[in-house]
Amino acid sequence: MIDFVFQNPAKIIFGRNALSQLGSEALRYGTRVLLVYGGGSVKRSGLFDQVMAALQAQNITVWELGGIVPNPRLSRVYEGIEICRREQVTLVLALGGGSAIDTAKGIANGVPYDGDVWDFYSAKATPKAVLPLGTILTIPAAGSEMSYSSVITNENGMLKRGYNSVTNVPAFSIMNPEWTFTLPPYQTACGCVDIMAHMMERYFTRVPHVELTDRLITAGIKTVLNNAPKVMAKPDDYDARAELMWTGALAHNTLLHTGRIGDWGSHKVEHELSASFDIAHGAGLAIVFPAWMRHATAQYPEKLAQFAMEVLDVPQSTGNQTDIALEGIRRLEAFYRSLGMPTRLRDIGLENADFEALANRALPNDEATVGEYIKLHRSDFVAIYQLAR
Amino acid sequence: MIDFVFQNPAKIIFGRNALSQLGSEALRYGTRVLLVYGGGSVKRSGLFDQVMAALQAQNITVWELGGIVPNPRLSRVYEGIEICRREQVTLVLALGGGSAIDTAKGIANGVPYDGDVWDFYSAKATPKAVLPLGTILTIPAAGSEMSYSSVITNENGMLKRGYNSVTNVPAFSIMNPEWTFTLPPYQTACGCVDIMAHMMERYFTRVPHVELTDRLITAGIKTVLNNAPKVMAKPDDYDARAELMWTGALAHNTLLHTGRIGDWGSHKVEHELSASFDIAHGAGLAIVFPAWMRHATAQYPEKLAQFAMEVLDVPQSTGNQTDIALEGIRRLEAFYRSLGMPTRLRDIGLENADFEALANRALPNDEATVGEYIKLHRSDFVAIYQLAR
Repeated sequence: MIDFVFQNPAKIIFGRNALSQLGSEALRYGTRVLLVYGGGSVKRSGLFDQVMAALQAQNITVWELGGIVPNPRLSRVYEGIEICRREQVTLVLALGGGSAIDTAKGIANGVPYDGDVWDFYSAKATPKAVLPLGTILTIPAAGSEMSYSSVITNENGMLKRGYNSVTNVPAFSIMNPEWTFTLPPYQTACGCVDIMAHMMERYFTRVPHVELTDRLITAGIKTVLNNAPKVMAKPDDYDARAELMWTGALAHNTLLHTGRIGDWGSHKVEHELSASFDIAHGAGLAIVFPAWMRHATAQYPEKLAQFAMEVLDVPQSTGNQTDIALEGIRRLEAFYRSLGMPTRLRDIGLENADFEALANRALPNDEATVGEYIKLHRSDFVAIYQLAR
Repeated sequence: MIDFVFQNPAKIIFGRNALSQLGSEALRYGTRVLLVYGGGSVKRSGLFDQVMAALQAQNITVWELGGIVPNPRLSRVYEGIEICRREQVTLVLALGGGSAIDTAKGIANGVPYDGDVWDFYSAKATPKAVLPLGTILTIPAAGSEMSYSSVITNENGMLKRGYNSVTNVPAFSIMNPEWTFTLPPYQTACGCVDIMAHMMERYFTRVPHVELTDRLITAGIKTVLNNAPKVMAKPDDYDARAELMWTGALAHNTLLHTGRIGDWGSHKVEHELSASFDIAHGAGLAIVFPAWMRHATAQYPEKLAQFAMEVLDVPQSTGNQTDIALEGIRRLEAFYRSLGMPTRLRDIGLENADFEALANRALPNDEATVGEYIKLHRSDFVAIYQLAR
């Protein structure tokens, strides 16, 4: 176990009656709210109206920034910053999933910053202050409701970049599993893949003696493995939706990487796909992660084999570490397919994409690497895309 | 899963170099510190001097409140409150285990309160404000370094009482597993029992569909089961000490009871023992918890059987739920004994204590109950003490 600092002050308000606390929570910060949200689903479901009613009941004035799209765009962040400054907004409130929340994070961090907010995403500056930020979560997936992370796509070059900062941890997040009943099956499945990926990125570490966090991650992934099929079969299964929603938040709130170093190579390999082709992040991960695992098994199978045995119940009698690891990957792919996810680039028509170009966008030169469990050079990116064809 | 609110803002600074951050953390709150600590062990180990040096290097003035004893006394809380008020202390800093920390919590909550701080422990008032509070943890056991809880014994009647409040969550806690190398084996074992008990109190719930938290608790308890024998055999096993120390904090930081209702009957049954006879809390729990489990199995074996199978690997083929539960309890007792813990009142010479008197102290009348998984009346307290003889 390596030395660590852990802190996650987000206040989580969870359950069927969670929304009843929105008004009083928002009012702690003032009476001027920017509401950031996505498409029509929150309007169709009636949740948007409930949120507006809860805020207006506290005499809170609301400005709207709607229509945030998946792989959310920098231009909308700029737009939100301008509204907040002009209207002296006291709370940026995201309503939706990771796209709305990450946009709200960009806005909340950008408002008190003198420079261009893209500086944070391009690692040119670190935020020192943040406007209060709240979330109302409707899509368990990105974990942004508790995370240090924000990921935004700059339309100028379609660069998808993220950064981590304690200023990105929301002051509060409100979650009601009922709001996820109406998620389309594909989006539900993408969310499950994303939640698992956040835990797997942390699981694959070379740091020894990380027993507690190994076990906690295993607990989280097994919960997804057990509950994802339940919600695919019965979308309004409250208990299964609740398990997934709470797991999704804990998967990415930094608890699970205390004392260890995560890998995050798969996320980088996937980010190039979803930035270039605008595919869902979860679907991209279902394709990329097993390919990364095969690539990693060839170099360092130990933790892959442990994952196969502890998380996917592959028996030790399967063979050597590589055999066990590969059987685990097969089981993982079968699970993804059971949720209707693609597991190959050919499943989404990208088997002939320009892998070299994707790798070149991710890494500035031949020497640069990403990942910790295994170091990925440009050539590894290409190899992983090829394994994923 | 039931609705919940979760928030734990404590900043955890963990590892071999954790103490290097003490000075800057303390300075955030000002330059006047009350240092609350126990007996001679922190002086013998040199840690006291290191702490003083780190504070003085920041020009922080330190007042001392030393000699805090196990089952810490209310009079020392009063004493600390007086020092803080007189000297305009800016941070109450505990150095030690649960006794020093719980005393510091009493002080930090008492300073801004107009009435008697015992009001909080006797449920007559709720704290509204708190002086900043930090901890330097040397004994993984009580979990007070992240918990909402403080337990103090009022010498006037030897009443041991606790209360929960977000104001009891420390602003920061500094933990270095190396500081636990010199803990005596008995104290190490008591700590492991206490840590497990915090998780078991939460495990035994009648709330259905709590899969994630069941799995997280199982992860935590299995980590203790695996690492406690390692530190008993090799007290300076850093990695095993680190697993226990981090598990101890997470065991009681409220994450593990999100969406469920804990029981806490065993703690109440034990509190009467340790308040009356001044025995170590962990040793008392090693005696009381198995007896409580036997008592509970007779009424509602389901969760006891699940515990036996998931946590203690009792095979389903053992028999019916009661058979499985009882085999789990036997394994738990064998584990406690392997650590040198008592598991019966006769092991500590209390088999003939006045059980009626203990029960009467805990519960004011025949109708009163404690516990959630099973409701304990006075007669149940007596029955559990008898099962524990």
